[in-house]
Amino acid sequence: MSDAKLQNVLSSLSQAARQLDALPSGRPAPAANYVKLNTNENPFPLPTIVWQSAIAALERQYLYPEDDNISLREAAANTYGVAIDHVIAGNGSSELLGLIYRAFLAPGDSVAMLSPGFSFNRKLAMLQGAQLLEIGCNEAQSLPIEQLLVGPAKDAKFILLANPNNPTGTFIPIADIERLLAQSDRLVVLDEAYVDFAPDNGLRLLGRYPNLLLLRTLSKSYAAAGIRVGFGFGHPQLIGRLRNIQNVFNMNVIGHAVGISILAHRAVYEENHMHVRHERQRVATALSQLGFSLTPSHANFLLARVPAGHDGRWWQAALERQRVLVAFLPDNGLENCIRVSIGTKAQMDAFLGAVSDISDSLKRGRSPVEPR
Amino acid sequence: MSDAKLQNVLSSLSQAARQLDALPSGRPAPAANYVKLNTNENPFPLPTIVWQSAIAALERQYLYPEDDNISLREAAANTYGVAIDHVIAGNGSSELLGLIYRAFLAPGDSVAMLSPGFSFNRKLAMLQGAQLLEIGCNEAQSLPIEQLLVGPAKDAKFILLANPNNPTGTFIPIADIERLLAQSDRLVVLDEAYVDFAPDNGLRLLGRYPNLLLLRTLSKSYAAAGIRVGFGFGHPQLIGRLRNIQNVFNMNVIGHAVGISILAHRAVYEENHMHVRHERQRVATALSQLGFSLTPSHANFLLARVPAGHDGRWWQAALERQRVLVAFLPDNGLENCIRVSIGTKAQMDAFLGAVSDISDSLKRGRSPVEPR
Repeated sequence: MSDAKLQNVLSSLSQAARQLDALPSGRPAPAANYVKLNTNENPFPLPTIVWQSAIAALERQYLYPEDDNISLREAAANTYGVAIDHVIAGNGSSELLGLIYRAFLAPGDSVAMLSPGFSFNRKLAMLQGAQLLEIGCNEAQSLPIEQLLVGPAKDAKFILLANPNNPTGTFIPIADIERLLAQSDRLVVLDEAYVDFAPDNGLRLLGRYPNLLLLRTLSKSYAAAGIRVGFGFGHPQLIGRLRNIQNVFNMNVIGHAVGISILAHRAVYEENHMHVRHERQRVATALSQLGFSLTPSHANFLLARVPAGHDGRWWQAALERQRVLVAFLPDNGLENCIRVSIGTKAQMDAFLGAVSDISDSLKRGRSPVEPR
Repeated sequence: MSDAKLQNVLSSLSQAARQLDALPSGRPAPAANYVKLNTNENPFPLPTIVWQSAIAALERQYLYPEDDNISLREAAANTYGVAIDHVIAGNGSSELLGLIYRAFLAPGDSVAMLSPGFSFNRKLAMLQGAQLLEIGCNEAQSLPIEQLLVGPAKDAKFILLANPNNPTGTFIPIADIERLLAQSDRLVVLDEAYVDFAPDNGLRLLGRYPNLLLLRTLSKSYAAAGIRVGFGFGHPQLIGRLRNIQNVFNMNVIGHAVGISILAHRAVYEENHMHVRHERQRVATALSQLGFSLTPSHANFLLARVPAGHDGRWWQAALERQRVLVAFLPDNGLENCIRVSIGTKAQMDAFLGAVSDISDSLKRGRSPVEPR
């Protein structure tokens, strides 16, 4: 192979593509006998009626998916009470986040996000040669509006809010978000991925503020992370620009069919949302009794500060030895925390059992038990 | 709604996003009683064994898809005889084309493509603020290497070849492509979407030329346009950069499962490929007898110059009145052509019947018949 050819090709990459280091290889999925509570999935089975729509869609596998996601966007418009030209559909809301970054950020620009936040945004900013300004607010229950309107964030091209926030689970009152939208003419991207587990949501702000772009996903509260269905809602002129730069056929026929069917049968999922809220409370109480300190959560996960003596990484590893996977997120000053998703009752019992065993071993001064 | 807020948000869009006009609304899918021969789909049913793998994957709908498409990339690596780090998997090869444009093109750059070619590339170039240089070669059966290495295309960041070409169906000898790769250090993107219907392919060039990036798709010869599965093959350093800028979870669990299963059962599709070749010949012969003039095709479609007297648009409309959809592509000087996909024998009989009816009406000096 000619090295000159390779060097020439690599040198013709754009600056952002050149600067990013090569990715480490992805990690294979864990074995099925692990209790997977590390990525906020919601292990709720596909309702039979949704399943049937997916199977019917498989028969259309040879046809290109519907142009511009029309039927799915129409279903979302009806469900959420807006007109279809206010809706864009994405291959997960992660595709839509990527589109927003590409639409608004040029090299040297900046975007503001509350910290600790969703670390994926760092990579999205880097891909545009832009800077992610992380505005520290720890686990605030209200919005630090001043910090977003003055100081370094003043010139950010847009402000990114997640409500409930990930990884803290905290929820900001919608009135705070409305104040920000009213006081600033800048775009506010409000990611409501976890909002179905929270007491309120921002949908009613859509008609009032053309500087609001609201994101939803079926990954969490509709248990369809593997299908990749997300929505963006906003002013038609803004949504039109995003649809314009979106790649053709961004979703497959199964994404369309499952998305439409889930939206038509949302009531089926209410029991699941009640289960998540109930388990979240039960697990929080149990963890408190075991010496953890909990951030009040409005999402389908808990951020738990571990008892003194060991850090979050240690607890993550100890739990993994018992085949329970939780998240450890040291990037945002959360070295002493673990984040645990709320799964089925059996999964949460296994998690609490493992935590209890590890705590017992620590009390007895022995190293944690081996896998059960 | 505050107009100042909207204007401020729109003015903060990047230049490329601002310049693109708003898209017209997408077109709804045609009714099921139309014979759809306008977008080169391949109406071959999903083999039972592939179907079963899709249904099994539906049970994992609540889990995020596998990180970095590992198993699917591994399957493609084994199938096509390369190592896994030479493979990137895309949500259709259209996602991969988009990634290549983003990785290599900055505003003011250019990319070269033979014309007539796949018009989607114009939009991809525009999104980067770059220029698509279309090198006219009509329906050449050999590669105009000189025109790609000197003249306006000399400074193009990469050269895009489709072989077989769309919409002409022409096939360039692999030796020509090898000469281009040897003579130039620039990146050559070789889109082999239709290659399984052709007599040869460029896979053997991969190990020799690090300036080659080869694209494949399961949309055409594996009848899975609705599932969205495409692959890119190239030097690991190049593939690594592309994987790096790719969005997370770009494919859903059904895309992974169907992709892996199709690759494992490719032999099942051989009968379909023989059928396409056979029908292509039969339809070409029949169209010639009806006064059309045919470009020899190595793909699953035919480009047919219509008989004198009416243009391609007229024929497209006349056929649509008989519920047969074909493509009319005036953008590339093909005003007198229609492009017809090769479908089932029944579909092609319906198409030929409609053409024959229209021809008869023309001969008798009457306007074409109404829908049958």
